[in-house]
Amino acid sequence: MPRAWRRGKPPISGWVQEQTEIVEDSLRKIPDTERLAAGIASLASITDPEQPYTRRPFTEFFQKGRQWLQGEMEAAGLKVRLDAAGNLVGWQAGRETLPPLMIGSHTDTVAGGGRFDGVIGIIGGVEVVRCFNEVGINLRHPLEGVEFLAEEPTDFGVSTVGSRGMVGALSPELLDKTNEQRPPLSEALTELGGCPEKVPNEVRQRGDIAAYLEMHIEQGPILDQEGIPLAAVTGIAGIRRFTVTIAGEPNHAGTTPMELRRDALVVASRFVIESELIFRSEEDSVGTVGYLQISPNMANVVPGLAELIVEMRSIDPGIIARIDERLRQKAAEIAEERGIPIRMDPLTDASPVQADPRLIEITTQACRQTDPRALVLPSGAGHDATQVGTIAPIGMIFVPSRSGISHNPAEWTDSEDIALGVQALARALVLADETF
Amino acid sequence: MPRAWRRGKPPISGWVQEQTEIVEDSLRKIPDTERLAAGIASLASITDPEQPYTRRPFTEFFQKGRQWLQGEMEAAGLKVRLDAAGNLVGWQAGRETLPPLMIGSHTDTVAGGGRFDGVIGIIGGVEVVRCFNEVGINLRHPLEGVEFLAEEPTDFGVSTVGSRGMVGALSPELLDKTNEQRPPLSEALTELGGCPEKVPNEVRQRGDIAAYLEMHIEQGPILDQEGIPLAAVTGIAGIRRFTVTIAGEPNHAGTTPMELRRDALVVASRFVIESELIFRSEEDSVGTVGYLQISPNMANVVPGLAELIVEMRSIDPGIIARIDERLRQKAAEIAEERGIPIRMDPLTDASPVQADPRLIEITTQACRQTDPRALVLPSGAGHDATQVGTIAPIGMIFVPSRSGISHNPAEWTDSEDIALGVQALARALVLADETF
Repeated sequence: MPRAWRRGKPPISGWVQEQTEIVEDSLRKIPDTERLAAGIASLASITDPEQPYTRRPFTEFFQKGRQWLQGEMEAAGLKVRLDAAGNLVGWQAGRETLPPLMIGSHTDTVAGGGRFDGVIGIIGGVEVVRCFNEVGINLRHPLEGVEFLAEEPTDFGVSTVGSRGMVGALSPELLDKTNEQRPPLSEALTELGGCPEKVPNEVRQRGDIAAYLEMHIEQGPILDQEGIPLAAVTGIAGIRRFTVTIAGEPNHAGTTPMELRRDALVVASRFVIESELIFRSEEDSVGTVGYLQISPNMANVVPGLAELIVEMRSIDPGIIARIDERLRQKAAEIAEERGIPIRMDPLTDASPVQADPRLIEITTQACRQTDPRALVLPSGAGHDATQVGTIAPIGMIFVPSRSGISHNPAEWTDSEDIALGVQALARALVLADETF
Repeated sequence: MPRAWRRGKPPISGWVQEQTEIVEDSLRKIPDTERLAAGIASLASITDPEQPYTRRPFTEFFQKGRQWLQGEMEAAGLKVRLDAAGNLVGWQAGRETLPPLMIGSHTDTVAGGGRFDGVIGIIGGVEVVRCFNEVGINLRHPLEGVEFLAEEPTDFGVSTVGSRGMVGALSPELLDKTNEQRPPLSEALTELGGCPEKVPNEVRQRGDIAAYLEMHIEQGPILDQEGIPLAAVTGIAGIRRFTVTIAGEPNHAGTTPMELRRDALVVASRFVIESELIFRSEEDSVGTVGYLQISPNMANVVPGLAELIVEMRSIDPGIIARIDERLRQKAAEIAEERGIPIRMDPLTDASPVQADPRLIEITTQACRQTDPRALVLPSGAGHDATQVGTIAPIGMIFVPSRSGISHNPAEWTDSEDIALGVQALARALVLADETF
């Protein structure tokens, strides 16, 4: 994947309009770097005092963050409302009667999260709106800025709650989901001010959103390692996961001769090694065995059972299918060789979402006008854009994550890089406004 | 290990005396198979009704079992007492004033244990004494029959409690050991009728026991697989264990390119595979990675840390040392190759205990007189004989474990095989009586 990421080039076509010199002059002044940093710091301070930088959805910290954010959005000139799916939606009219351009991201974090994941897209988006008004850029399209509800995995076992709701992917089954400590998701949504029963009425249809743009941290190491502040995103990788069950035989580790053993861990280890070789041999993809549990897991017992979760990710569904096939074939070989069955059961399968070709070109041009070295990368992580992409053209812009760390209090992106990301987002909006 | 086990031959020397034809005639009548089976069934019925065949030490079931056993021992003509270390010791005088021959084993079980582990050595031993009296075999040596306290791992984290006490290996530190639910081991020993402070006074010295013999289930699959009912034991394997720590780096499984990963599970898998190749290449030994824990152990995170426990067992300390060396060398190679350190920390190291060469010859002859096909095997599991072996010549006799299963309610040995084991034990006692 990374080899291709680095040399990736968007198609060059005639879609992208050149902006005028006057606009270019204004864009260079975006953003107000101090105001931007202050906004991120403010939101970082509205977090759980017991868990640094953590702002789980449906908590008081989340609600306080939103109250503060609503003030900022209104100060930027947006008309703000909460939609049925619990998204905080700001609106600004355009020069023409057109479907809106949308920018968005999220303010919720994982437990033990960081200050930048999601947040820079929100604060950066508000900053773009403010700057447009300050420098006098008035778009043809209306502009919607959305703080999507609960992008990260929730206690209900559902993620991207708000963006799912917006595109019609928040089914009654998902709304009924509950967990030990809580009433169902639908109740939590109602308490927050949403309206579960009206979610279907407010679903956006294809054509309702002219284009969606999201600026986000990379959550990976490539930009940081290359020392490059910006990347345009080609798409969001699909993820296919399997549980792998290897049923050997637990035996006394002292009395069972080596040649009579049916050691599930030895077979699991072969599977891990061979999987990694397959993943390394493929471009434009990554794969991982992140979960492994053996049983009985005691020093003096030959492992009888091993359960693994293997995943493969790519923005190319053909590559996912090929890796899947190669894994199955290799598993069958190992099972045959050892006489121990290896079962692979589908766990999850999320299709890749391609960025819109025009928006890839637009974000690439916007990033390269901001920094000529800008890369073109796929996203290995999921985003609200994944959901929005099912009904609208999407594009994303990445800024670096120091050492590739995210979902961690140590998550870090330099203010200068975030500022460049905001400028690229502003440029992309101007280009999209001309193109769509 | 098993290859050598199968072809193992004890040294042939002049030690073993041939018994007279009259004695041989009597030995052929041993045991009373029905009485033997009834004894095993009786003890199997004195177990925890909530956990089949379980008789944990220091419980009411254990104490009731001992009360019943004391009656059996007395009925066989033994004088019975409880020693300071909590062992139930029966005594019968010999024709001469000599240190005693000792036979023994245990009646405690693991939680979820079986009916045969330990028990057949005890019931079989009582049967031998009864039969000797019935057929008129009167040994030169006194005979001691010992039901050792708590051979299996206890809640205090100590095993072979009674046999340790008898040989001076039950230190004050071990007696002070406690666990959440219980007072220290010393108090539990007092409650049971033992006398912790007198344990040192009663320690047996080298020369105090002429020879020790123990009949036990194999707890491994070899006799069952070969369809052979008996084996003489060459020694009890030593066990060396290491914790192995592999510190890679946890990373986002979607955003971290394959070549930038420091995946602890991939390295751990290489270590498991290479260890198994080493174990398989060595004779007279077995080795296992029975424990493996990775962290954070989540499908979407590249494993950052792996902790393993690797063990090697052999009755040859030289082989243990060689495997140890080979493992370290291979670990260093893998670490070098991947640039991820592999740390190996000693966890436990129990030396092998060799059976006495004369007793290997005696038990082999006794087994082969009982069944000419009898094998000669090492023991991969530990026994009370491990402790007694530190101060006295030891020998052991194995009977089959169906499918090698033990420490399990499914543990099974056919009554006919146990009867052959008892006869072999009787023969070995007669031979030892002449030899020592």
